[in-house]
Amino acid sequence: MLNKLFWEDFVPDVRELMGEVTVDLEEVVAFAKRYDPQPFHVDVQEAEKSIYGGIIASGWHTCSMVMRLMCDSYLVNSSSLGSPGIEEVKWLSPVYPGNVLSAFRTVVETRASASKPDRGIVKTFWEVENEKGQLVMSMIGINFFLRREAG
Amino acid sequence: MLNKLFWEDFVPDVRELMGEVTVDLEEVVAFAKRYDPQPFHVDVQEAEKSIYGGIIASGWHTCSMVMRLMCDSYLVNSSSLGSPGIEEVKWLSPVYPGNVLSAFRTVVETRASASKPDRGIVKTFWEVENEKGQLVMSMIGINFFLRREAG
Repeated sequence: MLNKLFWEDFVPDVRELMGEVTVDLEEVVAFAKRYDPQPFHVDVQEAEKSIYGGIIASGWHTCSMVMRLMCDSYLVNSSSLGSPGIEEVKWLSPVYPGNVLSAFRTVVETRASASKPDRGIVKTFWEVENEKGQLVMSMIGINFFLRREAG
Repeated sequence: MLNKLFWEDFVPDVRELMGEVTVDLEEVVAFAKRYDPQPFHVDVQEAEKSIYGGIIASGWHTCSMVMRLMCDSYLVNSSSLGSPGIEEVKWLSPVYPGNVLSAFRTVVETRASASKPDRGIVKTFWEVENEKGQLVMSMIGINFFLRREAG
């Protein structure tokens, strides 16, 4: 196990692979039936007639799959205090079952909290590519982490 | 059943209730175990010791619950072609099991697609309040819809 990550450990401008996930048809449909039952996410025949030509993953499912890669690669082994939000989510290309997604993170900026000396802010750019190297999603967001030593 | 919604049917500046959802502890934990296994989402004892004082829903789970309200209240009965992305997501207050969330939509802007005469763009501001009237989440995003009559 690596040492637990604190705010001080996040270094801007380094692009790191978080991990890979293969998109599973059954899971795509199950997620969408519960949370996003649009025809092109849940109905094979309707999806084939749609502009996508087949079932695609809900964008929220893609975000959630990427969140899991974030957790496994660094967040669960950190002093994460959660997130106040996301500055942008771009769903750039459809995500199909069978796609193998690779997700990367690049720290954009870190700064100490002005109001809470025990924590700091990390802004991150996440990118998700499929097995053909197409960028299917990108996202910029904020996480709060405890500092190893309060400022 | 109301008439199917096309791009022309979206009118700016009208705030509409999409629906309500009660946040379920078992579902919060199940979602987070699969997609966001941070201690304050999955472990009651760790969550009680955290800054949140108890289990809270993953922000992605809140987005997904709101997506379901969007689908049920208008998207599934529309010519929705999906979304290219979200301009911002703000997780403003923690979402706890037992909270009753009310979600609202306000169309911010509509415009015809410059490149595809059969479709148009709708930008929407979504707000989510808990049963105490606290704003717990807001979001601005884009959807594509077919036009009733191509421009």
